[in-house]
Amino acid sequence: MSVSPPSQSPLSGPAILERIDALAAISAEDWRLSRLYLTPEHRRANDLVAQWMTAAGMAVREDAVGNIIGRYEGEQPGLPALLIGSHLDTVRDAGRYDGMLGVLTGIAVVADLNARGRRLPFAVEVIGFGDEEGTRFQSTLIGSRAIAGTFNPAVLEMRDAAGTRLADAMMAFGLNPAAWASAAYEPHAVLAYVELHIEQGPVLEALDRPVGVVTAIAGATRLAVTVEGMAGHAGTVPMTLRRDALAAAAEMIVAVEQLCSGQERLVGTVGRIEASPGATNVIPGKVHFTIDLRADRDPLRLERVGAVRARLEAIADARGVAIGIDTLHESPAVACHPALMAQLAAAASAEGLDAPQLPSGAGHDAMALAALTDIAMLFVRCERGISHNPAERITAADAEAGARVLARFVETFQPATSRP
Amino acid sequence: MSVSPPSQSPLSGPAILERIDALAAISAEDWRLSRLYLTPEHRRANDLVAQWMTAAGMAVREDAVGNIIGRYEGEQPGLPALLIGSHLDTVRDAGRYDGMLGVLTGIAVVADLNARGRRLPFAVEVIGFGDEEGTRFQSTLIGSRAIAGTFNPAVLEMRDAAGTRLADAMMAFGLNPAAWASAAYEPHAVLAYVELHIEQGPVLEALDRPVGVVTAIAGATRLAVTVEGMAGHAGTVPMTLRRDALAAAAEMIVAVEQLCSGQERLVGTVGRIEASPGATNVIPGKVHFTIDLRADRDPLRLERVGAVRARLEAIADARGVAIGIDTLHESPAVACHPALMAQLAAAASAEGLDAPQLPSGAGHDAMALAALTDIAMLFVRCERGISHNPAERITAADAEAGARVLARFVETFQPATSRP
Repeated sequence: MSVSPPSQSPLSGPAILERIDALAAISAEDWRLSRLYLTPEHRRANDLVAQWMTAAGMAVREDAVGNIIGRYEGEQPGLPALLIGSHLDTVRDAGRYDGMLGVLTGIAVVADLNARGRRLPFAVEVIGFGDEEGTRFQSTLIGSRAIAGTFNPAVLEMRDAAGTRLADAMMAFGLNPAAWASAAYEPHAVLAYVELHIEQGPVLEALDRPVGVVTAIAGATRLAVTVEGMAGHAGTVPMTLRRDALAAAAEMIVAVEQLCSGQERLVGTVGRIEASPGATNVIPGKVHFTIDLRADRDPLRLERVGAVRARLEAIADARGVAIGIDTLHESPAVACHPALMAQLAAAASAEGLDAPQLPSGAGHDAMALAALTDIAMLFVRCERGISHNPAERITAADAEAGARVLARFVETFQPATSRP
Repeated sequence: MSVSPPSQSPLSGPAILERIDALAAISAEDWRLSRLYLTPEHRRANDLVAQWMTAAGMAVREDAVGNIIGRYEGEQPGLPALLIGSHLDTVRDAGRYDGMLGVLTGIAVVADLNARGRRLPFAVEVIGFGDEEGTRFQSTLIGSRAIAGTFNPAVLEMRDAAGTRLADAMMAFGLNPAAWASAAYEPHAVLAYVELHIEQGPVLEALDRPVGVVTAIAGATRLAVTVEGMAGHAGTVPMTLRRDALAAAAEMIVAVEQLCSGQERLVGTVGRIEASPGATNVIPGKVHFTIDLRADRDPLRLERVGAVRARLEAIADARGVAIGIDTLHESPAVACHPALMAQLAAAASAEGLDAPQLPSGAGHDAMALAALTDIAMLFVRCERGISHNPAERITAADAEAGARVLARFVETFQPATSRP
């Protein structure tokens, strides 16, 4: 079931989607896709992917943290490698393309080289990362951090919802947690990292383009805002005597939207809000909300975060409510290498495609790999930008477009001369 | 403990507050005040109040729905009565003045008449209503509706949180639920209804006045608003492609506040909000919120409700989000009788007090009594407008000011010549 008929190119859209479906059948729950790190489903997924890697002419190994890796030697054995990767774990009730498409397309590219007996002046390695989503343990990017040499061994002591330590889950999976450091690559053995991924956003669809070149993985700031006014009876307190925490928060949310609009590649979102006491007939005395602000350029993001803070404080002042703003999370933007971006664009162009540039608003394994080597990412259009949802969908034609661009990129790949 | 020393006037602030404290000690929970309709605590409260009524020279009876009623005859037996009342039930974790102050002040006024051997050209009845808050069953104003002749017998089938039917709770209390209609007063036996109550709002405190004359119990409209946009990843959807339900709702909440400001005796409140899915990194796809809009004049309220609806729909239109607005509740304003308002103001003035007019934003037993007779209400200042909370507080001086104004009102009472 898992090997395409020989008449079909490994790069064909249907061939790739057939494997996507086979992989999606491996789930902890039979009514939806949920495949978490170091579970029996992870084992079965690694085994199936290993089978496909072997069939594509790769030497397969599983590393110390459960990543599955296939190596396709270059013109001679032992050459530095171009890494192609993405993840095999999912959120709960996931879509089937997020992560998996990048791994399977990487295998398809190698299978195509192998079918043609083509060897390159460098090795190609395809990596299926064991954990990107962080669904089981609190830490994300465990697989890619281990390979990049930035794995934090404190994570070994983290526990999942059932109380199982990560180190124990590794042992149950057949791994030796003490060997985690062996997963790290030597920088001189690596030329670059490229990741193909569904966009998880609506930009390519809106532009009517099957693929796009990622400029950077956006930097993000998450803020937790608390507004404190005074609760009171909705009928008895005149408007002029109120310090309504929700009316204040509403004005702030409108301001966040306004301050984050009108700048390309900048977004700001208030995703959570709670008003207390939360009764129809009571003026809210306290409101919590979150702000998620992202941009592909750190100076822009930091300037906007400052502007948001200042505006929120001014609104609070004017309304006589107290405000607290805590930074929950701060991550810098990770730039894709311009030379690799240019090579991806050229590969698309050679396939007759105009690949627009766009930032990645979501995090990816490439973020971790940037600590090891130059990175690049190719986005594939997905329906309505929906992801982390069973409705996640791409067309076979777009899957094939992505595979052909990646294949051409790999075949014409030139290492970047300098880190950006 | 419950009878003040003979040297102290029943109208003295400390005497009234002493009884307030004695009554507040009757609670289902020993760490907070919770006294629900037809409970053993209700029985103990009625018994204590009956004792005080008897001591004040009244004939006491409990009616068919559990109201406790004391009657002080006029110059001859059987004259029509001026009714003075409020409620003896509480919310959970209640303050000790809401309701009780009106009952105990009524008793004090009669006690004072009785101590002086004073009979009036009408009878005075003091009523402690059994249920105003509706804490135990879903229906509010059960006691006052029964007396006003607007009790809905369907309520007898309602159940409390433990599954007990109201009719069964009545029987356990020693009442005959089938006799509910006997609680209703004949209109010709009643001259008017007056209720003294804490303001439960901050207006008198802001004006630095101990008492105020209520113009009307505000009419109220409650709306449930649902805004539906499109959920999406907070990092991947550009601002221009969003249909953010929470940003839309925030703009609407600011509009509600604005449309309800600048008009005296009009208030508008958004007390509840829920945004889903409710994650920091997800654009909210759906938001529910409530609007509570009150005014002491129905035409103003209805015009503003229309303006709010129109503005919210315009905001939804402009943002491409769907909106649904449901009316949860609609109650007309209940006007106090101008002649009785004038008599309350004159009584205050004779006590050296300037009693400002203000609407009641909260509901009261007087609302139900308006179906039977002319009504009037006197508000007593409370600290910071706090009510339905153990921090509810009034001063002994204000309790006395209220009692003296009510006593003078009663002693000089003239029935209104016509219903307003």
